[in-house]
Amino acid sequence: MKKEYLMAPGPSPVPPAALLDMAQPIFHHRTPRFKTLFGQVNEMLKVAFRTANPVITFTSSGTGALEASMVNTMSPGDKAIVINGGKFGERFLDICNAYCINVVEIPVEWGTAVDPAVVEAKLKEHPDAKVVCSTLCETSTGVLTDIKALGAIVAKTDAILICDAISGLAADDIRTDEWQVDMVAGGSQKALMIPPGLGFLSVSEKAKKLIDNAKCQKFYFNLKKALKSYAESDTPWTPALTLIVGLHRTLNMIIEEGMDNVIARHAKLANATRTGIKAIGLDLYAPTCPSNAVTAVKVPEKIDGLAFVKKIRDEKGITIAGGQSQAKGKIFRLAHMGYAVDYDVLTALAATEKVLYDLGFSFEIGESVKAAQKALL
Amino acid sequence: MKKEYLMAPGPSPVPPAALLDMAQPIFHHRTPRFKTLFGQVNEMLKVAFRTANPVITFTSSGTGALEASMVNTMSPGDKAIVINGGKFGERFLDICNAYCINVVEIPVEWGTAVDPAVVEAKLKEHPDAKVVCSTLCETSTGVLTDIKALGAIVAKTDAILICDAISGLAADDIRTDEWQVDMVAGGSQKALMIPPGLGFLSVSEKAKKLIDNAKCQKFYFNLKKALKSYAESDTPWTPALTLIVGLHRTLNMIIEEGMDNVIARHAKLANATRTGIKAIGLDLYAPTCPSNAVTAVKVPEKIDGLAFVKKIRDEKGITIAGGQSQAKGKIFRLAHMGYAVDYDVLTALAATEKVLYDLGFSFEIGESVKAAQKALL
Repeated sequence: MKKEYLMAPGPSPVPPAALLDMAQPIFHHRTPRFKTLFGQVNEMLKVAFRTANPVITFTSSGTGALEASMVNTMSPGDKAIVINGGKFGERFLDICNAYCINVVEIPVEWGTAVDPAVVEAKLKEHPDAKVVCSTLCETSTGVLTDIKALGAIVAKTDAILICDAISGLAADDIRTDEWQVDMVAGGSQKALMIPPGLGFLSVSEKAKKLIDNAKCQKFYFNLKKALKSYAESDTPWTPALTLIVGLHRTLNMIIEEGMDNVIARHAKLANATRTGIKAIGLDLYAPTCPSNAVTAVKVPEKIDGLAFVKKIRDEKGITIAGGQSQAKGKIFRLAHMGYAVDYDVLTALAATEKVLYDLGFSFEIGESVKAAQKALL
Repeated sequence: MKKEYLMAPGPSPVPPAALLDMAQPIFHHRTPRFKTLFGQVNEMLKVAFRTANPVITFTSSGTGALEASMVNTMSPGDKAIVINGGKFGERFLDICNAYCINVVEIPVEWGTAVDPAVVEAKLKEHPDAKVVCSTLCETSTGVLTDIKALGAIVAKTDAILICDAISGLAADDIRTDEWQVDMVAGGSQKALMIPPGLGFLSVSEKAKKLIDNAKCQKFYFNLKKALKSYAESDTPWTPALTLIVGLHRTLNMIIEEGMDNVIARHAKLANATRTGIKAIGLDLYAPTCPSNAVTAVKVPEKIDGLAFVKKIRDEKGITIAGGQSQAKGKIFRLAHMGYAVDYDVLTALAATEKVLYDLGFSFEIGESVKAAQKALL
């Protein structure tokens, strides 16, 4: 018998209660029943995003929410400062290129976080920049960016701060209003604990002011339309109804636990994972700025990184993620986001040890789970 | 005790087997397991769309697929002929306006279908038109358009035919390849029997040739990227995984029944509905060109159409749809799409009679169910 565990940085496991809620007979979305449900979801999303502003729900992947953040604030030829230290920094660049937005790139070495002073200098150099784009957790590297520092810097300018918090939200702390982040993008399939298919976007008053003059073309992702519907607990287009039903359940779980406790739980799991990894002589890919959502680990020399990820999935039942692009074969990524507890960390480390053992890596068996267990207690 | 029935033209009921498949623990989408599943879904979609060409799956509502059809074939200033006889003809207009596409509108009286000769004349008048846009079933009116005739007309020109078959597909006959329809858009929550959240788009070779020169801006709905991923049974962005799992089940059901039988079943249900409606003295909104997917009925004089829809839902447990825009309060719409059988027609008619009785409409009680039962046998 093999049990299957999902420990990749999204999709992440869905609580059984939410799975069963979504398996109830479907109902219609233009009804008081839906309006009541969606109204409650929208209030709870504000809690998860730590904002008093609207959090718009799109039926799309998180990428759709990122596209929405750009096309509703920018015109072709406008200038965006993009912090790029991984696949999702790159995605901002790709969106800008698709919409003829002028990019000032701040390249960041993979596995490291941007120095906020560099962003401040870039903003001084480009006072005409309309937006600054950053990831919270850069999923491809497990790097956490100091969004609080960026918020303070960008708030002093006319630019807005757009944060891709898709994989970080509800795992890493982000205080949208307190830190003055104008747009925070989220996705359903990470620490919000439901299947993929919904993207989220919070919209500050400062961001809202850009909407009317933003000339990038859009229809499906038109934020003005979405905000208008939102005001009536509605959506412009047919929403992914069952996912919203599931979200109602998982947001209730998050609110019952309390956002501070949710973040603290993720911090504890991430710390235990890192402690365990280091205890068997492996190195972290982002040692100085690790996210609570996912831990990226360097594949030891002489070990085939692609084989490692395949073996742990196919033989040990644990789906994790390998590296992407320049990190392909060089790292593996263990997620601890959403529906994750202490025992999941031990499971992930135990499976990691098993595969390393099979592949001939030399270490003291059990050291990672022992160290993690100590860190957890 | 009140049982709830969903008989609005989408979302439509989801078979319990699909609901339970979607309630299984989630898995990762960048895995052999997903590729196998999605590859099979893609082959089955071809059967449902009656095409040998790719059918692309977007994580979006059907509107997203419509947007994709336009932005990937057109440039700003290009000309589109749009047949507009309802809310979804209008949606094509709105998309064109959002992307600065030049529209030649063919207005059609609500409740009637376009005369193909008018489309042929318009195409002669505008030989530079790049696309012709039509609905299959116009959901807002229950009108079926003669797509076969339009296909023959458009195929003789350089233009492509884009068909919004979102509510019609797998209820009304559409033979994508045989009828030379270049792009057929579908949605998950209609006769494909799964919850909302997926949009589909078939792409002919003739349509594919327009992609490279189409300058409308896009990112999320980039068809070139989608086709590239499709070739590897993959998606460019994280897909709505659970909906694809459910779709695998419902497409299997459709294929087991056989597309011809599926269409014949819908034709039978639609005919019985119309027969029942007429038997109690009500008038059809689209008597000459009714769709198999949804029957639009004129609200009798002196009856409040909005109250009718509210009463049948809140008191009798049947969710149907009212009219939209110019038809608001004037019609109600009974859907018989997807997971629908004979008994559902009788249920809908029985509830209709009950509300009409409560509202003081004069008719012979039981005549509609009797007439429908006769039509079904």
